[in-house]
Formats: sequence, C-alpha cells, structure tokens
Amino acid sequence: MHLYDSTVPSGNAYKVQLLLTQLNIAYKQTSLDILATPSESRKPEFLAINPNGHVPALVLDDGSILTESNAILFYLAEGSSYLPDDKFKRAQVLQWMFFEQDSHKPYVSKWKYRTYWAPHGFDDLPKDQVDDMRVKGQTAIDVMEKHLSDSPGRDWFVGDSYSIADIALYAYTSHAEILGFRVGQNVKRWLARVKETEGFVRIKKDPTGKNPY
Amino acid sequence: MHLYDSTVPSGNAYKVQLLLTQLNIAYKQTSLDILATPSESRKPEFLAINPNGHVPALVLDDGSILTESNAILFYLAEGSSYLPDDKFKRAQVLQWMFFEQDSHKPYVSKWKYRTYWAPHGFDDLPKDQVDDMRVKGQTAIDVMEKHLSDSPGRDWFVGDSYSIADIALYAYTSHAEILGFRVGQNVKRWLARVKETEGFVRIKKDPTGKNPY
Repeated sequence: MHLYDSTVPSGNAYKVQLLLTQLNIAYKQTSLDILATPSESRKPEFLAINPNGHVPALVLDDGSILTESNAILFYLAEGSSYLPDDKFKRAQVLQWMFFEQDSHKPYVSKWKYRTYWAPHGFDDLPKDQVDDMRVKGQTAIDVMEKHLSDSPGRDWFVGDSYSIADIALYAYTSHAEILGFRVGQNVKRWLARVKETEGFVRIKKDPTGKNPY
Repeated sequence: MHLYDSTVPSGNAYKVQLLLTQLNIAYKQTSLDILATPSESRKPEFLAINPNGHVPALVLDDGSILTESNAILFYLAEGSSYLPDDKFKRAQVLQWMFFEQDSHKPYVSKWKYRTYWAPHGFDDLPKDQVDDMRVKGQTAIDVMEKHLSDSPGRDWFVGDSYSIADIALYAYTSHAEILGFRVGQNVKRWLARVKETEGFVRIKKDPTGKNPY
C-alpha cells in the first residue's frame, strides 16, 4: 500500500499510520508539502489521486484508491478486532467518527493549524469567531469527557475494546491540552490508555519545529 | 422508531427521513425549534438524548439511540440494497459520506443557514471568509461533477446503484443552485435521478417561509 500524507504532521494521516502499524501492514509513504504555494496536495499529480486535494489518500496494492481518513480506517479495520462485528456497535463507531469530523476536527484541528502554521495565525479572524472556534472545540472535548464518565464509566468509546473510534478521536484530542483546551480526567486517562495499546506509534514530529508536541 | 429533527428543514435530518420512507419504516417525529433562544436542541431534555445537541437523533424501538445522520443511514441501510455488501464499495460509500460532512456540508449548509435563518446573515463575517465559504462549497460541487462525468460516466456515486452515499450528498446539493452555486450538467442529471427513485420524498417546506425551496 502507498500512503500519501503531509510533511507537517496531519492528524487525519496519523490515524491511518497508527492503524496500519497496529495491523502490521507494510506501506510506502509520500509526504506532500502542504505549506508550499501552491500546496503540493493541489498539484495535478496528486489531484489525479484525490480530486478533492486532501491528505491522506491510500493507494491499495491493486491500484484502487481510498480517501477520507475515517473511511480508510473502516476499510482497513473490517474483520479485525479494531471494528466490532455487531451492527449497532459498528454504527456507534461510525457515530463517533462522524462526530469527530463534524464537531471536533473543524475546531481543534483548525486551532492547531492557526497556532503553528497559518501565515496570519488568528489575526485575520474577528474575535467572536476565534471565541466561537474555542467554545465549539471545548464543547466537543466536554462531550467526550461526559461519554467516558457516564456511570459506571467507560474505558473505550464503543463497547469494551479499543476500536477505530478511539483512533479517530485520539488523533486531534492528543494535542488538545497543549493547545489550551481543558481536558478532563477521564479523557486524560483514555489518552494514556490509547498510548498503551499494542503497536502504538506517536504522530511524527513537526519538521518545521513550530509544533512542540 | 422516534426521529428528532428541527422545525426548519435540516438537510441532515432529511437524509434519515428519506431513507426511512424508502425502507417503509414507520416512525414518530419530534421537531425541535432550533431558532429559539436557547435552541430546543440545547435544552436538558434533548441533551439527555444527544449530549452534542444536534439533530437528527434516532431512538430505536429498544430505546437505544443513534446520532450523526450518516451513521444513522449506515445502520438503517445495512442488509438492504442501499448499502453494497462488497467491502471496498462500502468503504467508498463511507468515503463520500465523510467527504460530505468534511468538505461539502460545512460550506453549502452554512451558506444555506446564513442565507435564510442566521440573525445577521453574512454581515458578521469578513468578506474574505464569505468568499472562502463560497469557493470551498463550489469546489465540493465541482468534485462531485468530476466524479459523475469521469469516463464513461456514472449514474450513482458508488457502483451501479443508488446508495446512502447518494442520499447523503443529495440533501444539501439539492439546494445548491438556488443558493447561487454553479451546478454542472452531470450533477443536475443525478439530482433528477435521485428524485425518481422509488419512495422518494422531498425535504419538508420551511415553516418560516424564508427558504423558498
């Protein structure tokens, strides 16, 4: 398999790297410079792979292509312990993955991008929008805290085992505290639990040195 | 089953309504006033159903709850003709559903909300952000046009049949032209094709009368 990610660490690409490693699947990797002008992800060579111009993209051994990090996770995890067989639990895994893309990533990931790499940081946004981004990112993290702390408490987001729902949520939540979001005790314990899963690898270091994580 | 939607027509809730109708599943419906202050979707009664405070939410007959429109679609469609059995095709369906939440809905849906219902319309956004919203929404619709027009042309987003990928993309794309986005010929023909599927129902009318669709 051939994974396209970015030179600066993308949480979305990291999800796929983490699962590929935990599944012991060997892969080639090409890292695109998304901070270049224009971004290497918007050049014709890559648009032929993903017309939407986003990383990650995964080219399978037969040449077929999948994009969208969480769809790639689902594909790779089917039939493994990382995705439950039960129909309702599978839907719950997807529920958390759509929550991640819809209610979490747009705020926490944008906060990360503006903190470290955006040319103007937060300066080109009105203050009420910066506040809104902060509030919505915090709300997502608080929803996670509530879910994990609901009596009698949960170790993982769905059922009794680590799944791709945890991988999807870990990618950007692992940066949340360093970005200044409040991270509750249950989320902190869950983050530590993910780090202890077999074959865990951390997200790559930022080659620009701007992101200290 | 019991579906929670909003009084003003939500594209996300409409997806679930359309599939429930096409599957001939009877359901009760509660419509929340999301334009109220505070929104009825943020009141304790509803937060007990969805702590994230978003519609739609679907309460199953056994009392268990699913949220996130596309996760609900996946759950309802499993085992039906609306979701392929093939593992790769299923991942492609998810790829388009994540694309919809990540690259399409945040712009086209927000444009719709600001056009019809937001208290300040677009007035509280800097011009470059309005432009950015327009460009990104248009890019998503153009990516759809390219996919459908790729030689030798496609009738549906995945494989040879109508699936929940089409339902997910239809919900907000059906409003795109009236909102001023350019909609290519292949997307227009696909929209017409969706309307002709068995059991199709349109999105409900806006009770405020602001959205003429």
